[in-house]
Amino acid sequence: MTNVPGWANNIHHDSSELFLSDPLPRIGDTITVSVRVPKQDELRTLVLRSRPDGEWRRTLMEKARSDSYYDWWSAEMPITMYHNNYCFQFLTASGSFYFNQFGISPIDSPDWFNFTVLGDYDAPLWVREQVFYQIFPERFENGDPGNDRQTGEATLMGKPVVQREWGEIPKPFAEGSTVEFYGGDLPGIAQRLDYLQDLGVTAIYLNPIFDAETNHFYMIRDFDHVAACLGGDSALEELRAAMTAHGMKLILDFTPNHIGFHHPWHLAAKDNPESETAEYFYRHPDSGEIEHWLGVPYLVKLNYNSQKLRDIIYRDADSPIRKWLKPPYSIDGWRLDVANMTGNYWQTQCAAEVWREMRQAIKAENSQAYMMGEYFQDSSPHLQGDQLDAGMNYQGFNTPVRRWLGRGDLGVEEDQPFGDVNPIPAESMALQWRQYLTAIPYVIALQQFNQIGSHDISRPLTVTEGDQALVKAGTALLMAFPGTPCIYYGDEIGLFGGHDPDNRRCMPWDEAQWDNDTRAFHQRVIEIRKASDALQHGGFQLLQAAGDVVAFQRQSRAEQMIVIVYRGPDESPSLTLDMVKANVVDGSSLRELLTDRRYTVSDGALVIGGLAHGQAMFLRVEQS
Amino acid sequence: MTNVPGWANNIHHDSSELFLSDPLPRIGDTITVSVRVPKQDELRTLVLRSRPDGEWRRTLMEKARSDSYYDWWSAEMPITMYHNNYCFQFLTASGSFYFNQFGISPIDSPDWFNFTVLGDYDAPLWVREQVFYQIFPERFENGDPGNDRQTGEATLMGKPVVQREWGEIPKPFAEGSTVEFYGGDLPGIAQRLDYLQDLGVTAIYLNPIFDAETNHFYMIRDFDHVAACLGGDSALEELRAAMTAHGMKLILDFTPNHIGFHHPWHLAAKDNPESETAEYFYRHPDSGEIEHWLGVPYLVKLNYNSQKLRDIIYRDADSPIRKWLKPPYSIDGWRLDVANMTGNYWQTQCAAEVWREMRQAIKAENSQAYMMGEYFQDSSPHLQGDQLDAGMNYQGFNTPVRRWLGRGDLGVEEDQPFGDVNPIPAESMALQWRQYLTAIPYVIALQQFNQIGSHDISRPLTVTEGDQALVKAGTALLMAFPGTPCIYYGDEIGLFGGHDPDNRRCMPWDEAQWDNDTRAFHQRVIEIRKASDALQHGGFQLLQAAGDVVAFQRQSRAEQMIVIVYRGPDESPSLTLDMVKANVVDGSSLRELLTDRRYTVSDGALVIGGLAHGQAMFLRVEQS
Repeated sequence: MTNVPGWANNIHHDSSELFLSDPLPRIGDTITVSVRVPKQDELRTLVLRSRPDGEWRRTLMEKARSDSYYDWWSAEMPITMYHNNYCFQFLTASGSFYFNQFGISPIDSPDWFNFTVLGDYDAPLWVREQVFYQIFPERFENGDPGNDRQTGEATLMGKPVVQREWGEIPKPFAEGSTVEFYGGDLPGIAQRLDYLQDLGVTAIYLNPIFDAETNHFYMIRDFDHVAACLGGDSALEELRAAMTAHGMKLILDFTPNHIGFHHPWHLAAKDNPESETAEYFYRHPDSGEIEHWLGVPYLVKLNYNSQKLRDIIYRDADSPIRKWLKPPYSIDGWRLDVANMTGNYWQTQCAAEVWREMRQAIKAENSQAYMMGEYFQDSSPHLQGDQLDAGMNYQGFNTPVRRWLGRGDLGVEEDQPFGDVNPIPAESMALQWRQYLTAIPYVIALQQFNQIGSHDISRPLTVTEGDQALVKAGTALLMAFPGTPCIYYGDEIGLFGGHDPDNRRCMPWDEAQWDNDTRAFHQRVIEIRKASDALQHGGFQLLQAAGDVVAFQRQSRAEQMIVIVYRGPDESPSLTLDMVKANVVDGSSLRELLTDRRYTVSDGALVIGGLAHGQAMFLRVEQS
Repeated sequence: MTNVPGWANNIHHDSSELFLSDPLPRIGDTITVSVRVPKQDELRTLVLRSRPDGEWRRTLMEKARSDSYYDWWSAEMPITMYHNNYCFQFLTASGSFYFNQFGISPIDSPDWFNFTVLGDYDAPLWVREQVFYQIFPERFENGDPGNDRQTGEATLMGKPVVQREWGEIPKPFAEGSTVEFYGGDLPGIAQRLDYLQDLGVTAIYLNPIFDAETNHFYMIRDFDHVAACLGGDSALEELRAAMTAHGMKLILDFTPNHIGFHHPWHLAAKDNPESETAEYFYRHPDSGEIEHWLGVPYLVKLNYNSQKLRDIIYRDADSPIRKWLKPPYSIDGWRLDVANMTGNYWQTQCAAEVWREMRQAIKAENSQAYMMGEYFQDSSPHLQGDQLDAGMNYQGFNTPVRRWLGRGDLGVEEDQPFGDVNPIPAESMALQWRQYLTAIPYVIALQQFNQIGSHDISRPLTVTEGDQALVKAGTALLMAFPGTPCIYYGDEIGLFGGHDPDNRRCMPWDEAQWDNDTRAFHQRVIEIRKASDALQHGGFQLLQAAGDVVAFQRQSRAEQMIVIVYRGPDESPSLTLDMVKANVVDGSSLRELLTDRRYTVSDGALVIGGLAHGQAMFLRVEQS
């Protein structure tokens, strides 16, 4: 772009600990902000521009130190607000340009593009150090057949409950509805903690477990008790104790957006607009009927205009949002279902207010609790430090990666006319990463909830049409990308599954059914992730994105790691990575952690020949 | 970009009346959304994607009609919220891509990039039909020498008031401070309304006129009375009456961010933390001193944590924000000074809340009142329909245009080390336009307050270093760009002036001092603007931006206008504009309004030879 010199493309800063003396400062602190600038003679003035109280503040930066390729310029920035926006202005004799979170810009861009450092933000730092494992409780393990639901014991919307044999394929929704039960429960999970520990995961995200009529337990009847068929409250207490003994974290799933049709609040209100709970619901202005979630008759939308509802959901000391955070359950955080719609209905769009209040309630119980919301859509307005700690990162990670790996477009899932079966090139995947990373503070990016599979989308092995190498490629990206990785149960042993309920098949415990090669790969990359300071805490710099290959760098103060993932055919032409851009000098040695091979940098490049289909590389720069 | 076919570049939609059946719908309405798509055989599915209550809503679009080059696809969109976000998804056999307010995207971008239609937004529609004229009251005309301030009659911070002769050059700030008075007043303005009407302007924006000690009247002592030296309240009443008789609109300048040191609220509080007005101010946590605006000792920052302050500034029926909107003054709106900092101080960042409340107060007096804020910075978070109607559009228009015309970088103004003296190319100007247009709903863009000069920046003729042709080029852009144009007094007759106070020279009434050619050009382009439905109400489509030339289209339902502005040397090589992109068919006749020349489109192009330095063209497509 005009006025922007070529060397500008190697400027780097990413609000990580390598560039901020404190990436999580308190208000009142002054931090040092650094930016890495290629050595040259053209730069005359470099300005750190922040915006305290809405006004520009320009600080001339100074060259603090130099290494082989780069000068490191720095300046002090007082942290005076919760949300501190900044960018860099470069001036040469031929013009000025800017560097913001989106990259180089020839002009001064809107604040959306700029970097952010949060003041007084209490990040749940443990999150980025975990490897999560998502369990759909009804399908993981039947630990106590005594609590199993029996065929015909109840009906839901005319469909009788059906007890299925473990391992049978779930019937399509039209046939099986949501009342097929296999007997999975919390005691089953507790019995399999050794399996999980062997896999290497350190935290569990459980789909809902509260009393509800459906096998997904989203049709809540009682937020205050664990469903009997899952083992009841005591089973959760026991699971928690067992997980604590294993050093594992636990987050549960809460549905703030709606309750089940048979929840007493709704039963009291549905035919009686004068009932005490009537204000918990919306009524359609024309029909006068109580509103349901997206028209699903058995899920009833909650109305957060009701202050009383806010009390009983999260403000009261014994409200469910608070109760389960307390001993003996002491869960480590919440995944909030349908976060994208919670609090929103026509003129009422009070999600931001609900999240701020709920955040206060949650953090009052445990300042380190994780508050994460489900968003298939852009969630960035709610990820600015005052509301959620993270989103289920569909747009920022999951969808672009799945679209790069195969049939991962969300429209393909359900055979929609807008579904795009074509994989996207790495350029598009990287652009989507970049846009969604730009939209949020980097400390939030480090705790985004990343997945390549979940209970709501087809399994990775189905997305890749059975190509296990590509599932590995996706799993490597999951471990390498900023955020906390979460594996959906069974993906590690090669389960297939289309959209739900097919993606909720029973976990097979007959090891003959496992893909042990895939499982070993999971173990290995989980181990790499857990041992890597850079992958947990480091910044992010894209190095290359071209068609079948993507390469980026994660760098913390302690470690520098280059990750390459390749989806093309075996024996690729050799790949040349620009090591000047990565700031790795000639002669440096890089150790590839999966193969233990060593590579040496020369002529400013790292040359890698003959990548295999689906190959991932974790190249750690060896300390000299 | 991969997966995006070439024809995608000619897709167009801009949330204007040409593409929305109602660009200002009520909540509950259903509108028809159209998009213009080049004719081809590749498009399989076109989806209008909105996000009611936070959830995606996908509507398959249908081909509603076709013209020579384009198919017009449309779909219905129910308007259910105040802020309705939407984009378009295109699917071909080779992949999908998106079209949002920023343009074509190979991936699904964050909502920031998408289009917005506001529901229940009461746009002050008169605004886009005006041509404003900004007057710095002390320097326009001395209508009543009887009220003039006299040398030595008072002192401010040790500087005595000095009475200057009309037309003398203001002394630099260090010497003259803000207490040089020339005698300009409201009766002077009233006497010159015929001049303004002859120029063609239809509305006046007056810098502050309330009782204050400085010549800029921002050091407010009393919001409830017009300064005596400007003529007092009765002079405003008379000016209003005279303007009404001339069919002119009037907006005034209010300083919500701070008051003058000698305002009674501050005098009562400054040494007495127990005073009733103490809560109107912030005290520094360390020093305990009352905070001033950016350290300027005579401007005292207001604290909107005080509910009482909110009452007396804008909530009470007799508060100044409301009072001056009522008869007999009946002003048509407010320009809000230092809007970027109002309500913001460390942990308190309550600007959004103050604007929402102030909006209620203003609109309760006059639903069509204009609420416009001063922002040198990005103001887009406050321009989403619930807060301000507009900003002083420095970033979105003023700065990029001034930087394209010459030494218009804001850092150059005050000789800062980061000032960039290099003009930017048209590509950069257009990119800045595009980013800031993307940040706001288009109905807001149509009422943005655009200027190329103001009391806070050097005059256009100084920016162009005396090049009057370039001032004309900038004035043409001002008339042509989406938003309401405002001319800073004296720019039309060729006043020079560096940064303040040099840009606040007296308006010369000796016509021998006028640049009548420039004035005639202003009259002509003002006339074009006022007669043009497209320039007032039309959408915006960039056609070309390359170095010295920029061309765009404004199109309403009634009119199609192509605007070209050129800053290069005389006798340019011929310019070829793509008329397929503009959807103007071969054989069409375009009339250039400044020259009355006619041009004919052939071979899908409009060829214009030999543009002159600074030339602007307003090419109206003739109805066949």
